[in-house]
Amino acid sequence: MAVPRETAAAARRRDLAGPVPAGAWRTEVPVRFSHCDPAGIVYFARYFDMLNGVVEDWFSEALGIDYHDMIGRRRTGLGFASAGAEFLSPGFMGDRLTCAVTVERIGRSSLTFRIHASRGDEPVFAARLVMVTTSLDTHRSIPLPDDLRAALERYWESCK
Amino acid sequence: MAVPRETAAAARRRDLAGPVPAGAWRTEVPVRFSHCDPAGIVYFARYFDMLNGVVEDWFSEALGIDYHDMIGRRRTGLGFASAGAEFLSPGFMGDRLTCAVTVERIGRSSLTFRIHASRGDEPVFAARLVMVTTSLDTHRSIPLPDDLRAALERYWESCK
Amino acid sequence: MAVPRETAAAARRRDLAGPVPAGAWRTEVPVRFSHCDPAGIVYFARYFDMLNGVVEDWFSEALGIDYHDMIGRRRTGLGFASAGAEFLSPGFMGDRLTCAVTVERIGRSSLTFRIHASRGDEPVFAARLVMVTTSLDTHRSIPLPDDLRAALERYWESCK
Amino acid sequence: MAVPRETAAAARRRDLAGPVPAGAWRTEVPVRFSHCDPAGIVYFARYFDMLNGVVEDWFSEALGIDYHDMIGRRRTGLGFASAGAEFLSPGFMGDRLTCAVTVERIGRSSLTFRIHASRGDEPVFAARLVMVTTSLDTHRSIPLPDDLRAALERYWESCK
Repeated sequence: MAVPRETAAAARRRDLAGPVPAGAWRTEVPVRFSHCDPAGIVYFARYFDMLNGVVEDWFSEALGIDYHDMIGRRRTGLGFASAGAEFLSPGFMGDRLTCAVTVERIGRSSLTFRIHASRGDEPVFAARLVMVTTSLDTHRSIPLPDDLRAALERYWESCK
Repeated sequence: MAVPRETAAAARRRDLAGPVPAGAWRTEVPVRFSHCDPAGIVYFARYFDMLNGVVEDWFSEALGIDYHDMIGRRRTGLGFASAGAEFLSPGFMGDRLTCAVTVERIGRSSLTFRIHASRGDEPVFAARLVMVTTSLDTHRSIPLPDDLRAALERYWESCK
Repeated sequence: MAVPRETAAAARRRDLAGPVPAGAWRTEVPVRFSHCDPAGIVYFARYFDMLNGVVEDWFSEALGIDYHDMIGRRRTGLGFASAGAEFLSPGFMGDRLTCAVTVERIGRSSLTFRIHASRGDEPVFAARLVMVTTSLDTHRSIPLPDDLRAALERYWESCK
Repeated sequence: MAVPRETAAAARRRDLAGPVPAGAWRTEVPVRFSHCDPAGIVYFARYFDMLNGVVEDWFSEALGIDYHDMIGRRRTGLGFASAGAEFLSPGFMGDRLTCAVTVERIGRSSLTFRIHASRGDEPVFAARLVMVTTSLDTHRSIPLPDDLRAALERYWESCK
């Protein structure tokens, strides 16, 4: 890649911290004692765990899809092929983080989306996740179920 | 970026799954029952937690730096500015993952490195982490401590 | 103890699953995907983590005490000398558990309390916790701070 | 119960911290950064998670039973009906805890055992766990599988 490394990193951070569409679904997540480490700030692995809870609520509240039924009864995995986050500012016990979900790409058997977390106006972290729908019997990817695809397309439209 | 999205993703995965230098430090991590989710495979947030344990042991065993003393007595944070992983193959209970650490860049107050995890010859996941040294009093970045920098440079040489 | 072991265990379970005072503070906790294990039910260690979140909210909502300020600014530890739970029925993804807090004993530097969790009318687990207030500088017990003691006594009265 | 409360508690703590048979299986567990909380000591829920890892290794190393195969292929749950611990001394980052397993009672479909954790000669915590074997299809208790029962009886003898 021709772009100098530092510039690319700065661009990525700016990009990730960028504005979230007004129509994006948002939820508020409390930072717990147990999320924090001996440095007194949120332990990075806990952010990823927090993100999965955000995804569960996004499914039920914004997409109208029952996340637990998808995995349980429908045996459709909703795991990640890729997960990354930029940590822009430390999170502290007692913070209440606003997390907003933005869909970036709806693929054949995958979904790329971002979650931006902020404390008031201040960005705290920004994550990009690639979720892949799989059969829980074979652990191979399967096409996005029709109801999930339709819900994602509606959500995409509503965020414009 | 001019590269088509799919091709870039494929390239990133190939890159991340690529060969690890023979001189890289390695450790073996068991996949526990508690690492796994109702889908029967390792829950992605647990991989990130697992990675921090790998980093702790890499510090003490390969770098000769006491990770806990750095954070505790020396009040120097070793948190992440960025963390990402590509999950290439599911991990199962009872797996023993070989994790290898490769330094990518030693900055002024940051360290970029990769951890490759494999089960035998099969890549399971590949992570890229940017660690930043901070003052635990101000939560601002500080230059890499001299002993850590020297150890990283020695490690870098030994991996060539 | 003269009581036969099995009878004592049965009594303990009956006791722990028993009625909760109408005045007890309650909160609802969702069972997340990440709380569950490959057996498809909540992993026991996650229940204990869940309990700490319940305690944090009980402090702020029922006692009017800022849990995070107590630990952070006031440097008063709120750790446990003892923690135990009886798991009466498995918890599943998507459950919403009602958790109720009952104070059992207010000591000089400790607090014994119970948390009962149920799904509708069905008891799911019952925990007994002994919290000890400590100095975070010495890790030795200190008397319950006056505001915490007063709040606990008010809560105790309100539960009668 | 006729025993005064405080005395009973003191007795329980003394009992739990008591001597472990010389023949008991032991393993060493490192206290990780991620095990610790903003108070700088091990977060109690993490101890319970640590205990499950000890149980897994005890199964494979001392009992000769494949824990993961039991849950995975054999669909036999090894969950807990009861779990409790007394925390006798705080655990710190970098500690290496010696954990010893003592069987207390082998029931029809349950196993009661203790895990004592110490740092050198100093007791850190003592846990009592009641594991119940269940069918993972019905989540109902089933008799201890014959190979597990035989292994537990051999272990019991070897600890005398």
